[in-house]
Amino acid sequence: MSAANIEIRAPYLMFLGDVHDQLAAKTATGVVHWRRDDCIGQVRFPDCKADLGLSDMSVAEGRQAGAATLVIGAVNPGGVLPDHWVAAIVESLESGMDVASGLHMRLAAQPQVAEAAQRTGRALFDVRHPTGNLPTGKGTKRPGKRLLTVGTDCSVGKMYTSLAIAAEMQARGWKADFRATGQTGIFIAGSGISVDAVVADFISGAAEVLGPANDPDHWDVMEGQGSLFHPSFAGVTMGLIHGSQPDALVLCHEPTRRKMRNVEHPIPAIDACIRGHVEAARLTNPDARCVGIAVNTSALPEAEAADCLKMIADQHGLPTVDPVRTGVAALVDALA
Amino acid sequence: MSAANIEIRAPYLMFLGDVHDQLAAKTATGVVHWRRDDCIGQVRFPDCKADLGLSDMSVAEGRQAGAATLVIGAVNPGGVLPDHWVAAIVESLESGMDVASGLHMRLAAQPQVAEAAQRTGRALFDVRHPTGNLPTGKGTKRPGKRLLTVGTDCSVGKMYTSLAIAAEMQARGWKADFRATGQTGIFIAGSGISVDAVVADFISGAAEVLGPANDPDHWDVMEGQGSLFHPSFAGVTMGLIHGSQPDALVLCHEPTRRKMRNVEHPIPAIDACIRGHVEAARLTNPDARCVGIAVNTSALPEAEAADCLKMIADQHGLPTVDPVRTGVAALVDALA
Repeated sequence: MSAANIEIRAPYLMFLGDVHDQLAAKTATGVVHWRRDDCIGQVRFPDCKADLGLSDMSVAEGRQAGAATLVIGAVNPGGVLPDHWVAAIVESLESGMDVASGLHMRLAAQPQVAEAAQRTGRALFDVRHPTGNLPTGKGTKRPGKRLLTVGTDCSVGKMYTSLAIAAEMQARGWKADFRATGQTGIFIAGSGISVDAVVADFISGAAEVLGPANDPDHWDVMEGQGSLFHPSFAGVTMGLIHGSQPDALVLCHEPTRRKMRNVEHPIPAIDACIRGHVEAARLTNPDARCVGIAVNTSALPEAEAADCLKMIADQHGLPTVDPVRTGVAALVDALA
Repeated sequence: MSAANIEIRAPYLMFLGDVHDQLAAKTATGVVHWRRDDCIGQVRFPDCKADLGLSDMSVAEGRQAGAATLVIGAVNPGGVLPDHWVAAIVESLESGMDVASGLHMRLAAQPQVAEAAQRTGRALFDVRHPTGNLPTGKGTKRPGKRLLTVGTDCSVGKMYTSLAIAAEMQARGWKADFRATGQTGIFIAGSGISVDAVVADFISGAAEVLGPANDPDHWDVMEGQGSLFHPSFAGVTMGLIHGSQPDALVLCHEPTRRKMRNVEHPIPAIDACIRGHVEAARLTNPDARCVGIAVNTSALPEAEAADCLKMIADQHGLPTVDPVRTGVAALVDALA
């Protein structure tokens, strides 16, 4: 039994509580973007400063409308569960919903929540906390194809790019699954493993569990994390690369950033970054190659964005897209 | 407060219980090798098949002889604490000793042990389990020099080589500390962090805590783990490299091994292995270089061992030693 086997049931009722700004609801915003039809409504307290553009509902109204899971996709200072959120969670459990949380603090660490879950038999999901025993990675080649997004930094659009590629594959009738490795991705997929939260010895093992043996023509699109060139998180990236055994890598990049997130290191050069990630990937898949570049040009005006994509494509000789502005068809074409 | 701050007090009374063979006492054997003068005696039950070459003692006799800590340096199937070991542990706590364990199961997970520790105010150390909050790595250059052992595989002599180098530096009057990253090393040093057991996001942060800012002429000799070329554990190695910011790397190698430990991958070539580890290290220390090679030739007869060292030294143009057979003076010379 591993965290890859969790299954968060849709439809979702999105809980925002009384968060102080829209950024605190970033996770929920991502879930609504990708699972709009499965998000029945939002639960907001009077002081809430975030808005997902969903109908406001009470817990009871959400349940009545068919919600199966209350999703706590908002962050709170310190990652703890505030006392004044507890009643809504307990009510959700009592009404027959499961509860899924992206907070650092585990739901069951709150005694009333633990008691209510026990009493009602409903499930609690802490998507930041892997559950169950993971194996160590073995590096043995397994059937099925895998694509992994990597990056010149953290937070450059790896999740979005992965979701867009999986959606494009599915739209073409390919067998494809998005495989989530972070909290927002797990809410979107309904399952996954927060690989940055597993014990260090089991990073590649987690990726092997997450993208298991499959049909030879099936694609697992694995959500990347961090960067081999980020001094805080390269270990996570390395294990994810080895466990994913990617046939294809897509490099994600943000062209206006000068320093890597939360550290003083400069953004690595794209060619060095591609070379480093492909070399690491070849340890477990000698055929690994970079098939394209996904650029997050959201900070650039339209004309500059187009120039930027063209320049990067010319410099590196690879299909180069902005998943939001141009879509990812060119990346999927490169796999066909 | 972090696990780097734990301090296991010597002298040690070595507890073997009734382990079934000498291999199950491998950790204790390593501790006795490096801390012989601090190991007062061994506690063995009638069926014990391991022997550390120490005086057999009861817990009471060990305490009387001055032991400050009972060290459980034996492994048991499943890593659990057997019920029939509990009385000796409780007696140790009641007699005034701390207890340190290398088992997977935490000491305090055994209710009688937890109760006795609470009642007596004695400390329990689970060296496999990091305690306290670790920061994420920042990659900012800090003063002091660091040497890190890396390897062509797991279990090729990185701990032994690191200890030998630290001892050689100290014998020359250099300022130097061995920094332990695994359970045996932690027993030997009396402190350290099991880096393969930290949460994946904090690997490089753990290494930064373990080898903190120091005098410009002080050497931290960091115990390496795994290999960048091992598909199970390369993430741990990567984080350890970035957090250590090594000025000097020493590559450890076992020349008779054909496959990497517990997987089907071949042992990487020495030159590729040096290049890969040095490149990774340069992310946080652009001056990182490999200063030599430590070969574990224990599987070779004397004459072949000498040939092997000469061949490797000639091929790679680096000082090449067997820490056991030749000592590590040539490696430390290369740093002078």
